[in-house]
Amino acid sequence: MLKPEDNAKLVHVGPGTPGGNMFRAYWQPALMSSELPENDGPPIRVRLLGEDLIAFRDTEGKVGLVDAFCPHRRAPMFFGRNEECGLRCVYHGWKFDRDGACVDMPSEPADSLFKTKVTIAAYPTFESGGVVWTYMGPRDKQPEPPNYEWVRAPATHCRVSKTYEHANWLQALEGGLDTSHSSFAHNERLGDKNWIRNRDGAPRLDVEKTDYGYRYISTRNMGDDGKYIRVYQYIMPAQALRGGVTSWTGLGKADVPRLDGHIWVPIDDESVWAYNMVWSYDAAVPITEDWHVKDETRFGRGPDDLIPGTFELKKNLANDFMIDRQMQKTKNYTGIVGINTQDFALQEGMGTIVDRSKEHLGTSDKAIIACRQLLLEAIDKVAEGESPRGLDPSSYETVRPYDAVIPHDKEWEVEFAPELVAKF
Amino acid sequence: MLKPEDNAKLVHVGPGTPGGNMFRAYWQPALMSSELPENDGPPIRVRLLGEDLIAFRDTEGKVGLVDAFCPHRRAPMFFGRNEECGLRCVYHGWKFDRDGACVDMPSEPADSLFKTKVTIAAYPTFESGGVVWTYMGPRDKQPEPPNYEWVRAPATHCRVSKTYEHANWLQALEGGLDTSHSSFAHNERLGDKNWIRNRDGAPRLDVEKTDYGYRYISTRNMGDDGKYIRVYQYIMPAQALRGGVTSWTGLGKADVPRLDGHIWVPIDDESVWAYNMVWSYDAAVPITEDWHVKDETRFGRGPDDLIPGTFELKKNLANDFMIDRQMQKTKNYTGIVGINTQDFALQEGMGTIVDRSKEHLGTSDKAIIACRQLLLEAIDKVAEGESPRGLDPSSYETVRPYDAVIPHDKEWEVEFAPELVAKF
Amino acid sequence: MLKPEDNAKLVHVGPGTPGGNMFRAYWQPALMSSELPENDGPPIRVRLLGEDLIAFRDTEGKVGLVDAFCPHRRAPMFFGRNEECGLRCVYHGWKFDRDGACVDMPSEPADSLFKTKVTIAAYPTFESGGVVWTYMGPRDKQPEPPNYEWVRAPATHCRVSKTYEHANWLQALEGGLDTSHSSFAHNERLGDKNWIRNRDGAPRLDVEKTDYGYRYISTRNMGDDGKYIRVYQYIMPAQALRGGVTSWTGLGKADVPRLDGHIWVPIDDESVWAYNMVWSYDAAVPITEDWHVKDETRFGRGPDDLIPGTFELKKNLANDFMIDRQMQKTKNYTGIVGINTQDFALQEGMGTIVDRSKEHLGTSDKAIIACRQLLLEAIDKVAEGESPRGLDPSSYETVRPYDAVIPHDKEWEVEFAPELVAKF
Repeated sequence: MLKPEDNAKLVHVGPGTPGGNMFRAYWQPALMSSELPENDGPPIRVRLLGEDLIAFRDTEGKVGLVDAFCPHRRAPMFFGRNEECGLRCVYHGWKFDRDGACVDMPSEPADSLFKTKVTIAAYPTFESGGVVWTYMGPRDKQPEPPNYEWVRAPATHCRVSKTYEHANWLQALEGGLDTSHSSFAHNERLGDKNWIRNRDGAPRLDVEKTDYGYRYISTRNMGDDGKYIRVYQYIMPAQALRGGVTSWTGLGKADVPRLDGHIWVPIDDESVWAYNMVWSYDAAVPITEDWHVKDETRFGRGPDDLIPGTFELKKNLANDFMIDRQMQKTKNYTGIVGINTQDFALQEGMGTIVDRSKEHLGTSDKAIIACRQLLLEAIDKVAEGESPRGLDPSSYETVRPYDAVIPHDKEWEVEFAPELVAKF
Repeated sequence: MLKPEDNAKLVHVGPGTPGGNMFRAYWQPALMSSELPENDGPPIRVRLLGEDLIAFRDTEGKVGLVDAFCPHRRAPMFFGRNEECGLRCVYHGWKFDRDGACVDMPSEPADSLFKTKVTIAAYPTFESGGVVWTYMGPRDKQPEPPNYEWVRAPATHCRVSKTYEHANWLQALEGGLDTSHSSFAHNERLGDKNWIRNRDGAPRLDVEKTDYGYRYISTRNMGDDGKYIRVYQYIMPAQALRGGVTSWTGLGKADVPRLDGHIWVPIDDESVWAYNMVWSYDAAVPITEDWHVKDETRFGRGPDDLIPGTFELKKNLANDFMIDRQMQKTKNYTGIVGINTQDFALQEGMGTIVDRSKEHLGTSDKAIIACRQLLLEAIDKVAEGESPRGLDPSSYETVRPYDAVIPHDKEWEVEFAPELVAKF
Repeated sequence: MLKPEDNAKLVHVGPGTPGGNMFRAYWQPALMSSELPENDGPPIRVRLLGEDLIAFRDTEGKVGLVDAFCPHRRAPMFFGRNEECGLRCVYHGWKFDRDGACVDMPSEPADSLFKTKVTIAAYPTFESGGVVWTYMGPRDKQPEPPNYEWVRAPATHCRVSKTYEHANWLQALEGGLDTSHSSFAHNERLGDKNWIRNRDGAPRLDVEKTDYGYRYISTRNMGDDGKYIRVYQYIMPAQALRGGVTSWTGLGKADVPRLDGHIWVPIDDESVWAYNMVWSYDAAVPITEDWHVKDETRFGRGPDDLIPGTFELKKNLANDFMIDRQMQKTKNYTGIVGINTQDFALQEGMGTIVDRSKEHLGTSDKAIIACRQLLLEAIDKVAEGESPRGLDPSSYETVRPYDAVIPHDKEWEVEFAPELVAKF
């Protein structure tokens, strides 16, 4: 349960809102590099934190991210021409480079100085890890560009995708930080008491706050087999990393030991990009494209799961996520196919913005509660002109998640110590 | 013509509104029994009086009607599992019985007492007459369950259907209480001066208020054939009953002498369920399913008239109710096929909420005016903690409508006396 | 750049708004005559200045334009019967003539005087030039009916069409008054330096205010070939006329020397009718239907460009106006086919209502700035009960636009003098 005013602080991200200012303190994924495949190719629409922008890859291969509307008469830059290191408005031919400078103004007399006085709003970009990052905050506070482990992993060892979610960003983040629901919402083996997630639906959570956010440890009792430990990493403001090293089916290693993560980027108050990362446990295990397609499909976000030309799920709220009530009775918990599809069903099904003042939180919600505390702290810090957690790359550079089953008499702090350090 | 503030009082039905409180004093149809055909079957969405609810038929065959969102983290109960006398949220497995008690909370430690402290909002239900009724008001004011004649009629003698209407509930009720428009909107015999409804378009209305609402008598002059009397019953807050005993075509008995009625249940301020009842004049006349389908089709709400999987008309505002202007010139008054389709065209075509301060009411609107008076009276009574009319079943238990043509020198009070008493 | 309060004054046109009152001082096109092809034919919906109306052609061939809702109980007049010099509501049969008088009220007793007290709101109409005009202002201020040259031209020499635009009316008018953008947005000959519009993208504008609005002269430098002069006429409140006498391709006469114009009529704040007129330069040149279809198609508003049964473009914002990025690189400036389609892409792409406080206007925007000044002046005049410019037909009766290339040493005032006078 959250005070309504705190909920409002957290869910609103538009320009000038406290939550929006907090998000604008950090670099954010603006798009995937693959969305702008060629220099001077078609510009695309990008909506971030309630702002409408246009992205284009210029002649030098750098990405510009500018206001969606021309400063002249507010014509749509989406229809603009991407030519010779600049995006040209097609209404009167005004052309802007990736930094927002007006480099041509053919509708005015050749000797006019007007063009030196006009700029288009432009945000700096930085490309790494298959992602085009942007920083939308005050220029004098621009932090170091992002340097997460997965960003450093070679392209052969890290894959990124994204999906469009019709829900407030916080519902998505909270779902991603929640381990308990995987025993229910993601239970694909109804009645199989031996299935790892069925063996303990009430994991104990221990949250440890850090300079980048927190890590939390979930402990599931596997009876004679020991305990199943998952270390989640929460890197502020909206990144969650978790281990995928342990097999979902048994207690051993997964076929491709890997690490998983999401970054959620608010599109506006009512929708969010879910960026999905998977990277390999170590250099010995590449993430092949074939395997990745299969893995994405398991999550319900594979190529065939999306409406062509979009990043939206074919299974969605309008068709009840194609729930199969018979399957729900006999095979899996939700009757819905696809792990993230199950998440979307729950998160979008809540309504676009949850009223958290109506919640009743239990011990399984410890990580959620801590996340909200840290976010409110960050909002206050930014409002006061201070640096929030997770801004300085040195705080998170070596961070990684992990999961494994260990004997009851072993301590995870010891066993996991070498595993929780970045290998890329 | 109505004062804008009175109109507002009448049309708004959400939680906490005066009109909403008035509706919540009565039992309301929540759904048709046939919508939950089997125990432990799929739950369904129910929206009533601006509240989102989920209905499920439990293992014992009883219907639960609970908040659409789990009290834990507000996950959608629609995707829930209907199992062993309870509906289980698929996010973290919390399970609630039909009374709203939390009967399982597997995400918390086994010895936790948290589940004894959490409930989901649940409304009592009562099933009769093919309808699942619910009471959404304060528990200490819960009235006796509904006991209308048609509710008591055997299933072989009463049929219920429902249709979704995109208009405020009051537009629907007012249409249902209006006899005059049947000479125009429902005139299927253009130019046939002998047709019963064409013989007098300006019926005289006499309204008699009662403990359950009112009955009103409409008198049409049939010339040498006498007078055509219809007694309508208005049972508060939103039920209208009328006779269908007299043939529509001539002046004699209909092929299946029957009685008709509607209950309108506000879904929210902008849409309403029209429940459609038909029950037989007496035990000698069953309402067969075959006949019912034909009758429903005549009303424009038969199985083929609905968009599959919904209760919405294929003929609707988006396609101008498939009006045929040539038919309108030569055959029927509206050019629209289906009696209720004609009603919907008028009621939805008004816009979702009519501004009644712009009306000009005549003598044909007497029944409408009386209805508004009674509703405003009921709203005030409920606001003051008093019982409104129509709450006590003893006020309406024996009520039924009737219609017949009688000689000019006969008195309907005498002729109709035995007919206006329930036979079931 | 415009003050936000001035922008608000200009863009809002509903009843009671300052801008709406200004528009209501003038006659407006309500529909095209061709939309009501026959007496006593189907009535149609007309939305103008935020008001919902119904138009019908009565038995005498005159057009009635009445409130969309019956004054009785607000039933939709759209479903009404158009019979014997009146439109009859199908709810209770009330019938109104084109002046709004209630001429039949069959639901009331025959001797009732009620019908003499009830009227439906009705606006006067006037039909000329293929257009049904209406005046929606105070009756005592009704001006002379419109008498533009194109309205007087014979039907064989003037053609009118209309298209539906999803944008505030002022974005459309401003596009229509802007000559500069034709060198860019309408550049169909990328890289052809000899193309008339490519030869000077920065025309000089000279605005001359008049009693009807203004005329403005745009001058493009054609080098050794002289100067290309276009005289635009702006007739208040929302009519723009321009010459089409000069060939688009070379410097000589067009194959069919013609004049062009638009009137924009606000549907409401977020949409606008664009009426498109073309009329011949003189009586020697009829505008044949065949030629007109070709010409309309060039503008992107031909019969095949519209969604059947509507006046809406198949190429629209939902499909990015079917932009072809390859075509944009090599053939035309926008990658969009159709001159007005290009305009719509820009004007609708701005969002429904532009925030003009974010603009940066240059010398090419002189005509736009003057237009806003005149409109604000007219709004103030109407608010003070005075007559705005362009109301009196004598101010604009002889006005026409023109365009031609003339030698540098000739003066357009002299050369164009005989051309700027109406020939019909």
